[in-house]
Amino acid sequence: MSLEPPLPLYVDCDTGIDDALALAYLLASPEVEIVGIGTVSGNVSAARAARNTLDLLALAGTPRPVAVGAAHPLAGRFDGGAPHVHGDDGLGNHPLPGSDAEPVAGDAADLLIRCARAWPGRLRILAVGPLTNLAEALRREPELPALVSDVTIMGGAALVPGNISPVAEANIGNDPEAAALVLAADWPVTLVPLDVTLSNPLEESDRMRLLTSGRPVATALGGMLDHYFDFNATFYGDRRSALHDPLAAAIAVGAVVPAVAPRVEVIVDDTSGPGRGQTICDLRGRFLGHPDQPGAHVRVVLSLTEDFAPHLLDRLLAL
Amino acid sequence: MSLEPPLPLYVDCDTGIDDALALAYLLASPEVEIVGIGTVSGNVSAARAARNTLDLLALAGTPRPVAVGAAHPLAGRFDGGAPHVHGDDGLGNHPLPGSDAEPVAGDAADLLIRCARAWPGRLRILAVGPLTNLAEALRREPELPALVSDVTIMGGAALVPGNISPVAEANIGNDPEAAALVLAADWPVTLVPLDVTLSNPLEESDRMRLLTSGRPVATALGGMLDHYFDFNATFYGDRRSALHDPLAAAIAVGAVVPAVAPRVEVIVDDTSGPGRGQTICDLRGRFLGHPDQPGAHVRVVLSLTEDFAPHLLDRLLAL
Repeated sequence: MSLEPPLPLYVDCDTGIDDALALAYLLASPEVEIVGIGTVSGNVSAARAARNTLDLLALAGTPRPVAVGAAHPLAGRFDGGAPHVHGDDGLGNHPLPGSDAEPVAGDAADLLIRCARAWPGRLRILAVGPLTNLAEALRREPELPALVSDVTIMGGAALVPGNISPVAEANIGNDPEAAALVLAADWPVTLVPLDVTLSNPLEESDRMRLLTSGRPVATALGGMLDHYFDFNATFYGDRRSALHDPLAAAIAVGAVVPAVAPRVEVIVDDTSGPGRGQTICDLRGRFLGHPDQPGAHVRVVLSLTEDFAPHLLDRLLAL
Repeated sequence: MSLEPPLPLYVDCDTGIDDALALAYLLASPEVEIVGIGTVSGNVSAARAARNTLDLLALAGTPRPVAVGAAHPLAGRFDGGAPHVHGDDGLGNHPLPGSDAEPVAGDAADLLIRCARAWPGRLRILAVGPLTNLAEALRREPELPALVSDVTIMGGAALVPGNISPVAEANIGNDPEAAALVLAADWPVTLVPLDVTLSNPLEESDRMRLLTSGRPVATALGGMLDHYFDFNATFYGDRRSALHDPLAAAIAVGAVVPAVAPRVEVIVDDTSGPGRGQTICDLRGRFLGHPDQPGAHVRVVLSLTEDFAPHLLDRLLAL
């Protein structure tokens, strides 16, 4: 048991199966206290993500303020999400018990700004969807970086291929203009890219432990993961699951420690060219052990000190 | 000894220390017969590259037709080359004995087209500099791809950082417009990127074997490499040398066999954005063992079946 008070945490998400895992993990984590959740269109619409989030919180018995965020990326229109990955409902077509919980008034950017002002200098941000709400909050409150402790982002691909193009990962690629603004802002960012999220999967045996746990949230997650495993099998070659958002959550919590994670210049390609949506990370120091670059404020997580899945499972089964 | 007649080979280069190693390696390789050499501005100017090439051929006692090629990339102007890498003269400030050999009439694109017509369907192309001459030849002779057997290119970075930007390798990045044309043309291409050329270095002990061999070409190469080792130490952390161009030469010759080398879609970023000069290779099949993509005509070499340096050294010491 830690004697530290829990860190106030704002979560921005597009719930989504792995978002649901991340939220459940955070609810089971004593290091943090979720003080606000904003939703954004990504895996599903922002409205659907809010419904999924509220229902998950109700099932866990832990209500939290949820605000619906941006329906569309800064440029262009929401493309309808990824039903082939997350199911039509974002939860693997494996519905949660409905709840009558409702979103708070105001949008996600408003909620984020209110949280930042309520815990000035202490609020931690975890963003596991497109970065539209964070970009909008930066526009509305230019002092936001000074009000926030730090930002952890699931997104990007540094030295591995992307997942929506040869170089673009979905969260960044679905709103490159927002990602460019958020990564350029003057706050400490930890980027958790596909380099680590794809190499730390959940296996079918892990899923069965969730499904048969008798715990309501874990059982629901085990059910949703069935669909996610089907999609993941198309590129892994067997049934397993990437742990994108839960891993970013665990790094934000501080419970999982990066091994190699240099602070380097990161530029988001927001052109309309073939590299659109890429997180261009300057990793030319790789033969020198990936030293930090002077002045860089984005830490890119390239490896972990230990396997993630056992830790995730421990917490989800304790919820 | 092979009973096959040697393959006719056109070499396009910007000589350059590692170009000199590649040319010497090719002269020592019975599998191929160099039938023409074009030069291009890259490591040094096209004119300087021709001088260096002619002097190296003279030292080896093996005259070959050398044509001066493009002084400038398709867009923009030659930037003066890379004296910090290759020395002011391109040969590590370690001059070769001067020769009175002169370039042939006509430019490199002309020479390439003449070679292709002289050995229709048989000519192999090896390009180890910016691809300006090949692009110009494609413009002048649209039937060129049908006249050529295949093209091997040292260039690009697939899953590793670039060397002139976080994502761009020098040969591609110094003329992205040309590279885009050459990689899109309908001929079989083998791309030898930094992924393999940086992971197969020459060590100081290898350099000493060249320097003390008593063989004129090997001794000259060992001298030039001193400067190259100094530069390479800035990113390797110790004195060694990448073998960019010689490795591409050995793959073109067929003497070095790629291990993992999928045929995948490759697009060159020729925007003016932060990804300019990147070779975007679609390697999303990595968890499935890098299967070939239907219709793709560019093979991207990601690993080799064995260490390259011993083979290179054997041939250079036999010259």
